[in-house]
Formats: sequence, structure tokens, C-alpha cells
Amino acid sequence: MPEIITAVYEITADDPAGRAAAVAVEQSHELPTELAPGNAVRDSLAHVRTVERRAGRPALVTVDYPADLAGGELGQLLVLLLGNVSLQDGVRLVDVELPGSLVAALPGPRLGVAGVRALVAEPGGALLATALKPVGMTAEQLAALAYELAAGGLHLLKDDQGLANQPWAPFAERVPRVAEAVRRANQDTGGHCAYLPSVNGSAEQIRLARREGAQGVLVMPGIAGFGALAGAADLLDGGIVLAHPAFLGGFTAAASHGIAPPVLFGTLLRLAGADVTVFPSWGGRFSLGRPECLAIAEAARRPWHGLAPALPAPGGGMSIERAPELLAAYGPDTVFLVGADLQRGGDPRRAAERLVAATR
Amino acid sequence: MPEIITAVYEITADDPAGRAAAVAVEQSHELPTELAPGNAVRDSLAHVRTVERRAGRPALVTVDYPADLAGGELGQLLVLLLGNVSLQDGVRLVDVELPGSLVAALPGPRLGVAGVRALVAEPGGALLATALKPVGMTAEQLAALAYELAAGGLHLLKDDQGLANQPWAPFAERVPRVAEAVRRANQDTGGHCAYLPSVNGSAEQIRLARREGAQGVLVMPGIAGFGALAGAADLLDGGIVLAHPAFLGGFTAAASHGIAPPVLFGTLLRLAGADVTVFPSWGGRFSLGRPECLAIAEAARRPWHGLAPALPAPGGGMSIERAPELLAAYGPDTVFLVGADLQRGGDPRRAAERLVAATR
Repeated sequence: MPEIITAVYEITADDPAGRAAAVAVEQSHELPTELAPGNAVRDSLAHVRTVERRAGRPALVTVDYPADLAGGELGQLLVLLLGNVSLQDGVRLVDVELPGSLVAALPGPRLGVAGVRALVAEPGGALLATALKPVGMTAEQLAALAYELAAGGLHLLKDDQGLANQPWAPFAERVPRVAEAVRRANQDTGGHCAYLPSVNGSAEQIRLARREGAQGVLVMPGIAGFGALAGAADLLDGGIVLAHPAFLGGFTAAASHGIAPPVLFGTLLRLAGADVTVFPSWGGRFSLGRPECLAIAEAARRPWHGLAPALPAPGGGMSIERAPELLAAYGPDTVFLVGADLQRGGDPRRAAERLVAATR
Repeated sequence: MPEIITAVYEITADDPAGRAAAVAVEQSHELPTELAPGNAVRDSLAHVRTVERRAGRPALVTVDYPADLAGGELGQLLVLLLGNVSLQDGVRLVDVELPGSLVAALPGPRLGVAGVRALVAEPGGALLATALKPVGMTAEQLAALAYELAAGGLHLLKDDQGLANQPWAPFAERVPRVAEAVRRANQDTGGHCAYLPSVNGSAEQIRLARREGAQGVLVMPGIAGFGALAGAADLLDGGIVLAHPAFLGGFTAAASHGIAPPVLFGTLLRLAGADVTVFPSWGGRFSLGRPECLAIAEAARRPWHGLAPALPAPGGGMSIERAPELLAAYGPDTVFLVGADLQRGGDPRRAAERLVAATR
């Protein structure tokens, strides 16, 4: 029996069985089956396994793909799961199961939960993070802010994804300055805060960041590509890869197409090599609900064919006040990302210390 | 006056002006303005220029971004146009205007319409293309099919995006065999068909393809990243870069969020370096309407700050029979992509010849 990849879709259509059959053909052969050679029909055609009609909800459909269609590559796995069908409304990828051999061939988190914990010397407690912002500050201003936040005891300090190579704080000036400030804060306080600049997938920027002492990077797979996570891990060689969801919302914001957030932000970005996967948590400026957010965390961390677990990183309007509630909900193997709230009141170091205290 | 990037959004909300203001902050500072230093508020904050309420339709909003926010990078331009806001429903990017200096700094098509025409020796007529498929055929079968299609007089023969490095026809075996078949067909018929393998953004695959005589490659920016188009152009050094829309449909399939197809498949992929931009045309298996498709073609080709025009490539269920209608609608500076229809009847060479005749 050849190995299979099973995708589960929600299909919104008058004839879900017909639509399911069309999806199976579109996503494998993309050719009417009567035109395909017999060996291709035998070896590489996908098949609908089940179609479950549900009253008042989209039908639930499972499609079996011959696992060899992915060719052992993450990019090609994405092509077969939703490539062309992403362009049609009414089809939403809600689950995926892979053979262990394929999971083993894909990147996965290089550090995972244990590796990140070791790097920031936090064996079991909640992991705390914030973002350097806003864009438009000078490198000197950003470095001063970074010192305060790191000295306050946070584990991870990432660039806002809005920081790039702008004239107010060019990358080659900003990253060394901020890295130096974080190093100084760590020396002064005995802390182990890691700095993760945003790199837009550029190898040159990743090398510069690493050379200057950054312990990882922020990558936006929606823009830089899904392969950019593993590419960054290769270049970092032991640094943290944090995936930011900018530009990925096209897949998740509508209910009747795209990809369910747990599959995208949990399963797929973990497979692609994210050690930390950022997503917009409930109760903030974005629209995911609590069950969906907890399902993302579960998909990022659950035991799965020996793959290292990734750290879910809920963010998007989180606050110090909500930290205990979020810690109780997500558990400690989580990166809690609190942004603007640490800059309120004009004393970011004290605010960071309050966040630390609130989660001990 | 500093230069600006103007984005036009359709906003679906009870309070479109309030939502517009939130978008401007989210996409630039991502921080409440009272917390930002004065120089950042002065230099890098985006501003809502106009909010036009429209009866029964989403409000039309223009937001001005300081052009320096993009830092001269395509990836960062995408971050500011729709990065975080992609994760919220109700905001759709429908137009963008850039200063000429930024357009000049971005990749753009390396060959463009004129370069592709020169490469395939077709000075003014319609450009005709097809896809090698289905996956699951052996390299020998694919090469035999490629010979027939190239001998029939097509200008471009691309791999189906379903072809990668699968065991039935591994990349390193398939690409040289198909390239050789196309070369032989060109010699036998005096044609100039170009072969474009699908490369998943891998530099190694692009180099192999070029070495074996491929005249370009197919790249999926939705998976390999938007920077993969310019990266491929660098490696090809004079070859054709064809952008395939797989996995990009998350942005276009819903009406109330994401990116309007002319902006995504026309403007943005042209800026990113596509010489040819494939999209699903009306009347096929996908859901774009005729006006939207013609607007994609217009955005790909219109004179714009000296940027080379790209070739729109309507596909997705096109046929020989419809070719004259499509040629009349799109005009000759178009790549007409006809897939399965050329494999009907068992004589692909004759079918390709009929497609050529139908568009002369």
C-alpha cells in the first residue's frame, strides 16, 4: 500500500460530493482523468475518501493524496493541499495527516520548545516577549528602549515587522546597536534576553544579525515564502526562528475558504521550521476566537511523528493585566507577546518587570 | 514634501472612518500614537486622506504612507500595504500608487513583453502556452508529450505546478529530457518554443534547469515568496520568469478582504519581477469575472513610471475554441494558456497547430 497524505476540507457547495471529486482531480492531475495515461491514474491521482453532509454547516470531506506527490518538499506539499483550489471559493483546509516518513523529510523546528528554553535559560516558566516599535525611531532611541525592555527580564525581544531598512534606523546600524544594548542589559541584570531582528528573508541580513550577536530572527513566511523559515534556521545554525503572520491573513479571515488557523499557524508553520509561531490571540485587535487559538497552540505542540514542538506566541493587543488569564489558558510552553502595553506609563523596564511578576 | 505611497482600500465596517484610522496606525506604527516619540509621529505615521461612504457598497478609503516606510524593498512594501491588516476581515486593498523613485528601486520584469517576444521570436502575434501534465507520468512520457506540443508551434511550454521532484519523474531526470525534446522539436520545425520548468524557488533547481537549456522557470510566489521572482531572474540571467498563482487565492477569493486581483496578479507581481503572470480567466474553472480579468491585464501592461510591462497569462480551463474570443478581448500582448484541451483527441501536435491557426 503506498503511503498517503490525508487532507480534510470543509466544502460549501450545492453538490459537495461533486465538488470534492473536482478538488481531488484539480489538486493532483489538473487534467480530466480520461486524458491521463494509465500509470499516472494508478500512481498519482488523488481520491475522495469520505463526504459528510452536515445540516447548516459546510460538508466535511477527506481526500487521500499519494504521499509521493509532495516529493519530500514542504512547498510541494502546500501545492497539493491547496495550490489551485485556493483560487476557488468554498473550499477550506481544516486538517491534514501525513505519513511519518514525510514529516521526517520536512524541516520542522530546529530548536523547538526545549532549544528555545535552553537559549534563554528559562527551564519551565512562561516565556515573555515584546516588540521594538514604532518604526520611525532612530537606532539610538530603539537601542535605549531595547535596553529597558531586556533589563526588565523578558526572554525575547523582537523587531516589530514594520522595522526593515528604513532611513530613520538603517538595518546595518540598528541591529548592532540594539544587539549591543540587549547584551549590556543581560550583563547588568544577569538576564538572558534574546534579540530577534526582522529580516525579510534576506540571507545577507540574517548573516549580519548573527554576526552582531542576535540570537535569532523574525521571518514573515507570507511574504518571504514558507521555505524562508528553514533557510533562516540553516544560516543561524542554532538561533531561534520566529514566524510572523503578516500577509497570511488572506487564508484565515474568511470562513468559507482558505486554511483553518490551527492548520496554518500550527501544523504547517511548525513543519516549515518555526520555533515560535506568532498569531493574533482572542480579545485583541484581531478576530480569532478562544477555541481556535487554543487549537493553534495544540497543533504547534502536540506529539506528532517525533517532530519537535513549536512555541505558540499569542499576540495582537495583549496586556500585562490579561497575562495570568492567558497563562492559565495556554500553559507555560507559550511565548506571551505583549507590545504597546509595556510602553504605557513611560517606564518600559518597570512594565516588563510587572509582566514577569504577573506570570510567576 | 516627503514622497508618499497611496493605498486605496475598500472597508466594510459600521464606522469606516474609525476603521480607516485604525488601519493607518496598524500598518505603520502598530502602537497608539500617544506612546510614540514625536519624531516617529512626524516621520513615519500613515494618515487617512479620504473616506468615501457608498450606498450598498464598502466605503472607499485612501491612506497615505510615507514612502520611506518601504525601505526600498518589495517585501516591506507588502508589509505596509496589508501585513497585519490581512488578519482582519473587512479590509480589501483595491489600488496602490507609488512614487517613481520606489518603482525604480523594485525589481520589475527583467525581460518584459519585448524580452519574451525576442526570446521566442514572435514579434507581434498572440503568445501561446501550455502545461506539461499530469504528474505521475514518467520523464520519458513527459518528454514525448513535450516534443509534440513544441512541434505544434507553441511559444511557451511550462511544467504544471504539480510537477516537482517526484519519484515517477525526478527533477534532475525530467528537466534535461524535456529540454532536449523541446530543443529537438525546435530544430525539426524551425520553431522557438521555450521550456519553463517549475522550480519551487530552489536556486539549485534553477541552475540545473538553466544549464540544461531551459529558457526560464515557473515560480509560485504564494509559496516560494515574493522575492523568489527576482531571485530567479538573477539566477537565470536573461531567462523568462513566469509567476503561477497557486496558494495566492487566499487573498482574492473573498469579496470583503484581501487584495483585488488586478493589484495582486497585475501590479504587485509585475513589481516583484514577473515577466509573465498567470491568473484564472473568466469562463473556466475559477471565479474571476471578465472585467476583473481585463483589469489584471491592464495593470500588468500599462505604462507606469518606466517599468517594463509584464505579459498577462489567462488560464484555468481555456480551450482552442475560445482562443479567438480571448484574443479579441485581451489583445496580442498576452500569453494564452491552454491546458487539457490540447491533449484531447490524442494528437497534441495537431491540437497545438489548431490553436496557432485559431489565433493568426
